[in-house]
Amino acid sequence: MDDVTFAVLGTGGIGRRTLEVSQHKDGLTPVAACDRNGIAVDHDGLDVGELLAATEGNVASEHAGNAPSGDDTRTDGGTAVKRHGEGAGVVASEQARPTETPIQDVIDESAAIDAVLLALPNLTHDFIPRTAERFAEAGYEGVLVDVLKRSRVIGMLDERADLFEESGITFVCGAGATPGFLTGAAALAAQSFVEVDEVEIWWGVGLKSGYEDNRGTVREDIAHLDGYDIESARELSDAEIEAIVDDHDGVIEFEDMEHADDVLLERAGICDAADVTVGGILDVRSDEKPTTTTVRVTGRTFDGERGTNTFQLDDATSMAANVNGPALGYLKTAVRMNRVGDYGVFGPADLLPVF
Amino acid sequence: MDDVTFAVLGTGGIGRRTLEVSQHKDGLTPVAACDRNGIAVDHDGLDVGELLAATEGNVASEHAGNAPSGDDTRTDGGTAVKRHGEGAGVVASEQARPTETPIQDVIDESAAIDAVLLALPNLTHDFIPRTAERFAEAGYEGVLVDVLKRSRVIGMLDERADLFEESGITFVCGAGATPGFLTGAAALAAQSFVEVDEVEIWWGVGLKSGYEDNRGTVREDIAHLDGYDIESARELSDAEIEAIVDDHDGVIEFEDMEHADDVLLERAGICDAADVTVGGILDVRSDEKPTTTTVRVTGRTFDGERGTNTFQLDDATSMAANVNGPALGYLKTAVRMNRVGDYGVFGPADLLPVF
Repeated sequence: MDDVTFAVLGTGGIGRRTLEVSQHKDGLTPVAACDRNGIAVDHDGLDVGELLAATEGNVASEHAGNAPSGDDTRTDGGTAVKRHGEGAGVVASEQARPTETPIQDVIDESAAIDAVLLALPNLTHDFIPRTAERFAEAGYEGVLVDVLKRSRVIGMLDERADLFEESGITFVCGAGATPGFLTGAAALAAQSFVEVDEVEIWWGVGLKSGYEDNRGTVREDIAHLDGYDIESARELSDAEIEAIVDDHDGVIEFEDMEHADDVLLERAGICDAADVTVGGILDVRSDEKPTTTTVRVTGRTFDGERGTNTFQLDDATSMAANVNGPALGYLKTAVRMNRVGDYGVFGPADLLPVF
Repeated sequence: MDDVTFAVLGTGGIGRRTLEVSQHKDGLTPVAACDRNGIAVDHDGLDVGELLAATEGNVASEHAGNAPSGDDTRTDGGTAVKRHGEGAGVVASEQARPTETPIQDVIDESAAIDAVLLALPNLTHDFIPRTAERFAEAGYEGVLVDVLKRSRVIGMLDERADLFEESGITFVCGAGATPGFLTGAAALAAQSFVEVDEVEIWWGVGLKSGYEDNRGTVREDIAHLDGYDIESARELSDAEIEAIVDDHDGVIEFEDMEHADDVLLERAGICDAADVTVGGILDVRSDEKPTTTTVRVTGRTFDGERGTNTFQLDDATSMAANVNGPALGYLKTAVRMNRVGDYGVFGPADLLPVF
C-alpha cells in the first residue's frame, strides 16, 4: 500500500517499540512522537534510531499540566527509569523540543499525518476518548488507534462515533495483543462455525528484561487480581506492587480477567461477551513465557458438528512483538479504510472477515 | 451489518452448501441461484429449504450452450447424481424456471443484488474472469467472490482491475478454505513477525458422504499429483479417476501443491510465493479427517527471535464448513467495502490486517 505517515502519542514501552517495529515494515513513516514534556516532528520521517537511543531507559512520566496523561502517573511505576529533570523523555532526542502542549502540537501537525497511535495504556478511563475528541474537534481526517484493554472505554468511543464520522476519523480501539491480535484470531477461527459457544483466550508473558518499561502494564494486570480493581491498583505504591509480585514469586496467574476482548467480540456479532474468558500467566523474572499463548474457539458447524479451532503463538514471540506488529497492521488497514471514506469506531474483530 | 442480498452462480456442492450456511447467518438473503439450465430468483429471499430439497443429488452439469460452465463438464464427474433430462438441476425447484442464458439472467437482476458468489470451481481457466467482465460491462456495482484455487486466474483478474474499479465492483478471489480461510489465518499469524520465512499449509479432508457432490474438487486435486496437470486430469474418464482413487486405497496425499495461497500471500506482501508450501491428505472413504488441518507461519520478530505461530482447525469441522463460512465472511466484508466505494481485485489476505 502507499506510504503511511504516523505519529505516536506516548513514548513509553509501547510507543518506542512501535517506532522500532515500524522500521522493519514497508510503507510506514513515523513523523511525530511526543510525551508529556516534548515533541519530535519531522514530516520527512523521524530518525528512529537516534530517538530510541536518546530515550531508552529515559521515560518522561512526571505529573505535568497539559501532558499526554493528565493522570497520576505514579502508575507507570518504577525508579530505575529516568523520569524527571532536564532531558527527561523525548526531549533527550536532538530531534525534539520541549512543549507544554504536546497533544495540541501533534494536532497542529495532523493535516500531514495519516494515523496517530495513542500509546497511552495506563491513564484515566476517559482520557483516550477525550483526546480523540480533541482531534475530531480540530477537524482531523485520519486514523486513531489505541491499544487499551478496558471494556468501558469502547462504549465511550462509540458514544462519540458521530463526531468521528463527521470529522472523517477511522478509530480502531483495543488493537494490541489482547485485545487486538488474539481478538482477531478468535474472529477468524470462528469462521468454521455458525454459532460460537465459547472463546478462551489464554496468554503467557515473560517480562524480565521488559519489566522496567512495562510497569504500567503490570499494574493494570494486578487490577485484575482478586481483591483489586483499577482504582485500588492505581493507589498502590511501587513498594506495594513489588510486595505483590514477591508474594507470587514473580509469577502471577490471572483468571476470568475483565478484558475488552469480550465486548469487542460481542460487538462484531461473534458471540456473547459472557462466552469469552480471558486469563494468563505473567512472569516478571524470566523472559521465557510461563505458558503458551492460545486462543480456543468452540462452536457448532452448519452441519451439526461441535469443534474447537486453535491459534497458538510461539513462545519465542515476545509481548512487544505481539502488541506492536498487530497494532501497526490494524493501523495500516485503518488508513486504507480511511482513504476510501470508511469512518467511525471499529474493534479489531471488525477488521477481520465478518462473522 | 445491514442486510446483504446475494446470488449464487452454480448449484453444485459449494453453491448449495453456501445457500445452506447463509440460513444460519445474520443479515444474508439469497435472492438468486442458477445453474446451466435454470434460474431461481426472488428478491424477497429464496426458499432455500425447498430449493435444496428439490436439487439435492440433482446437479445440472450437462454440456450446454450459454451455460455457467462453457467447459467440458465431464470434469464434474460421477454417475450417481442426476445430471440430465427434464428437471435436472435447479429447475427441479418450484421457484426456478428454465433458461438458456442463466448468467445473463442474473446480470439482468443484478441491480438489486449486493454480491454474487461464483461457485464454479472446475471450469476453463479464464471462465471466471470472462464472467466477471460481463458483469462489469453491464455496469454492475457490487461484489463478486470466487472460491478458485488456480494461481493464474488471479493474474487474469488483476488485468481487469481497472474495468472492475470503473464499474464499481469489489472482487474477492480465492475465498474458500484454501486458498481463503487458511490464507487469512497465515496473514494474521504473520503479525508477530517483521519477516516471514515460511508458510506451511497442510489440510485434511474426509469426504465420504460428500464425495458424489465434490467429484470436481477431487479431480482438481488429482491434477496436483505427480504426472498430472489440470489439462490431463480433465481428460480422465470417471473410471480412470476411480482407478487412481483405488490405487491409493481412497487416501491420497498431496505435496507441494500449486495452490493459489502462494501468490495470494505474496500479493499481500507477506512473503515470497516460493516460501509457501501447500499439501494435504484427502480420504474419500471416510468422513473422518485423515490429518489435522494446520497452518504454520515461521518468521523473525523485530527483536531477533525466530518462531512458528500455528492455526489448527478441529477435525470435526468439515470441508464444507471451512469453505462456505469463510466465503460468506469474505463476501460480507466485501459488501462493506463496496458500500464505501472500495473497488478492485482483492485476495483473502488483503481483507486481513495489513502486514
